Amino acid sequence: MSLSKSQLFFLKRLLRRNAPTHTVKMLKRFHDDDLAELFTQLSQDEQISLIRALMTGGRAGSLLAELPDKFLKTILPELRDQEIIKIISELSQSDLDRLFSLLDEERQNQITEKMPPNQLERWHELLEYPEGSVGRIMVKELFSMDAGTTAKEAITTLRSLGPEYKHLYYLYIINENRFLLGVVPLSRLLFSSNDQKLEDIMITDLVKVSPYHQGEKVAELISQYDLSALPVTSDDNRLLGLVVLEDILDILEEEATEDIYNLAGLSTDDRIFSSTKESFRKRVFWILLNLFTAFAAASVVGFFEETISRIVALAIFMPVVAGMGGNIGSQSMTVTTRGIALGELKFTSSFRALMKEVSVGLLMGGMFGLLTGVLALIWKENIMIGLVLFLAMIINMGMAGLVGAIIPLALQKIDKDPAVGGHIILTAVSDSMGFLIFLGLASWLL
Amino acid sequence: MSLSKSQLFFLKRLLRRNAPTHTVKMLKRFHDDDLAELFTQLSQDEQISLIRALMTGGRAGSLLAELPDKFLKTILPELRDQEIIKIISELSQSDLDRLFSLLDEERQNQITEKMPPNQLERWHELLEYPEGSVGRIMVKELFSMDAGTTAKEAITTLRSLGPEYKHLYYLYIINENRFLLGVVPLSRLLFSSNDQKLEDIMITDLVKVSPYHQGEKVAELISQYDLSALPVTSDDNRLLGLVVLEDILDILEEEATEDIYNLAGLSTDDRIFSSTKESFRKRVFWILLNLFTAFAAASVVGFFEETISRIVALAIFMPVVAGMGGNIGSQSMTVTTRGIALGELKFTSSFRALMKEVSVGLLMGGMFGLLTGVLALIWKENIMIGLVLFLAMIINMGMAGLVGAIIPLALQKIDKDPAVGGHIILTAVSDSMGFLIFLGLASWLL
Repeated sequence: MSLSKSQLFFLKRLLRRNAPTHTVKMLKRFHDDDLAELFTQLSQDEQISLIRALMTGGRAGSLLAELPDKFLKTILPELRDQEIIKIISELSQSDLDRLFSLLDEERQNQITEKMPPNQLERWHELLEYPEGSVGRIMVKELFSMDAGTTAKEAITTLRSLGPEYKHLYYLYIINENRFLLGVVPLSRLLFSSNDQKLEDIMITDLVKVSPYHQGEKVAELISQYDLSALPVTSDDNRLLGLVVLEDILDILEEEATEDIYNLAGLSTDDRIFSSTKESFRKRVFWILLNLFTAFAAASVVGFFEETISRIVALAIFMPVVAGMGGNIGSQSMTVTTRGIALGELKFTSSFRALMKEVSVGLLMGGMFGLLTGVLALIWKENIMIGLVLFLAMIINMGMAGLVGAIIPLALQKIDKDPAVGGHIILTAVSDSMGFLIFLGLASWLL
Repeated sequence: MSLSKSQLFFLKRLLRRNAPTHTVKMLKRFHDDDLAELFTQLSQDEQISLIRALMTGGRAGSLLAELPDKFLKTILPELRDQEIIKIISELSQSDLDRLFSLLDEERQNQITEKMPPNQLERWHELLEYPEGSVGRIMVKELFSMDAGTTAKEAITTLRSLGPEYKHLYYLYIINENRFLLGVVPLSRLLFSSNDQKLEDIMITDLVKVSPYHQGEKVAELISQYDLSALPVTSDDNRLLGLVVLEDILDILEEEATEDIYNLAGLSTDDRIFSSTKESFRKRVFWILLNLFTAFAAASVVGFFEETISRIVALAIFMPVVAGMGGNIGSQSMTVTTRGIALGELKFTSSFRALMKEVSVGLLMGGMFGLLTGVLALIWKENIMIGLVLFLAMIINMGMAGLVGAIIPLALQKIDKDPAVGGHIILTAVSDSMGFLIFLGLASWLL
């Protein structure tokens, strides 16, 4: 639910008059996500006032967590050290990690020096694990119990805990050395009879992760096995923490964005709200590479300059051969990349997938090559141009299918991200190859 | 964990000897997802035997739920009606929905006639709501209580329930007319004191959905508000069911696939394991459309045939102008499409996003136009060709940025899926426009 015009006007008044209690009250029924939207409609001074107001209600952290980096970078320098420390105390480990990475080193030192010990500890724990790892996003407020505990005892103990264990959907069962033995979903515990022991109702068939795994790995496991949380264990199976599905959603979305972005040669932090300068800087590398590949294609054409000057009609059909090949290849590459990302490759072999894409390319080439050949024959009244087009399109579209599938499959084999800048590499191949085949055949046959 | 070669050999033996108990035991420590992978390494006879074996352990349904449609289509006709009815009883509503849609009408009638009444009821409930709607995937085994109940009473009642309420993470609070008043997370209930009333600890700030909403809508809400489940209510706020995050993950992945596929002009059920025939049939429409757009570009070139025959060097640079424009446009379109999908558009206005993409295109055009112009000047020793290239690239790349951003934004404004076949439309514009600008300027200036 977003604010109406008059509500926004009223809110701006409250902010200017510095009335935090009223502001907090007014915004109570809006979700953090709606607040983030509202945020962009305020001036920077109003944004700061809003954050200070929300701080009194303990809600500034959850708003900041919703904002993209771009806004945080302009807001954080305006806040005092003590304010940032207060906000940090409201943040989850994963948000704390992100916020800190946006501060420069000097500011980080300044703030850590003023931090109370318990906050400092949280910050140090973060640094134990590498950036982007499970260790940085895991929840540590989990509750574990001994395997011999009865259901009734377990419930009584749980009832004596405080509300900070809000992520508790599962109860972890450990032995005397803190080795993880199994897990009991809270609902299963509730529905068991009083004297059943936890070891009798626990699930032992566990999917676990290491704190050093990258977040993407967990996202894959969670989505593959349909789990709502994963235990994090050390190499020797000691329970360290818990990763919950809610914290993984963002990573899953980032993953999908990466897939789409890779194909177009984009970096994932190049967003719709990024500045022109930022977007330019982040895209220029691939476009520069594209310039080289375009010149490679141009050189191929240049090589056949004499043939073209003899038969100018060839220039007309060049874009047809290259463009059709490019689109066939882009379809093959998209299907293959996505198949790898979703783990669908297990339902077929790489070789069969490759053969399929080549076959589709050849079929398309045969059909559309024939059509193009006939159209060219009618237009230019030259049977040989038609024949050359027909042959060139079969070969080029088959090749495009092959290249489109082989790029992501090969990159995956060597454990690289499939299809980084895929479209640009593909266009290079389908253009240069297409011109070479088309103009080569034409020089030979015409 | 996948099976080793010798384990696979052993399993095939068990299946051939028809030893269901041993098979079930052997496969006990493998997840359903691993079984699905294993499944593809078996012959069809072995696949059927495996499903029959798993049926004795009540696990056939969860395996079938993991398999893609393609496999189900070949397996289902081989199973007897009674076997399908047994499998159906193990399936969740959303899987039941998918399985039934894969049977032809005759088989559906045959099976529903033999179904026991409780199964038939589940099937009828499904039909109440349109395909792909929330009503078809919602969980109905949820538990609701009166607002005046105390925490202690609630826990006692819950403890008397059976294990079929396994999706219970939240307790729904209703009034005497079954109107939904609020929700109490199970963990919050556990940690409350005995005599607190549910109405005092419940969350009233609820995000709800209608059973007639499409699944994608819920996926959006769940990911936007970081929830792990959503209540489903009727128009008059009566509680009908519950959608859980685990069931939505697949829809989220489908959504991301759709985004990527749309750009390339692909239909979402064209997968890496689809047959050549199927993929051909599903892609041919867009490639046919691409043929028309390619001929449009060819006609533009044909219009300038005389100019090209005069200066053949123009044919060399045609692919540079068109290709660079295409890639600039594809980057703009990808960023814009993804920005819309992730709801990032709220952090900027459509107009500003558009202006940004045009600016990036113009900047790129200026920089690379200059570079290309100078290279062409050196290569062809003709200052006018360099100038024409420079001008054509600025204009074409600015246009490509504009078109790349405008296609998804415009489609979104009229509530259509952004960027269906986007690359093909974009290539059409950047090719035809590119040739028109480049060859037009050349005819005029050279």
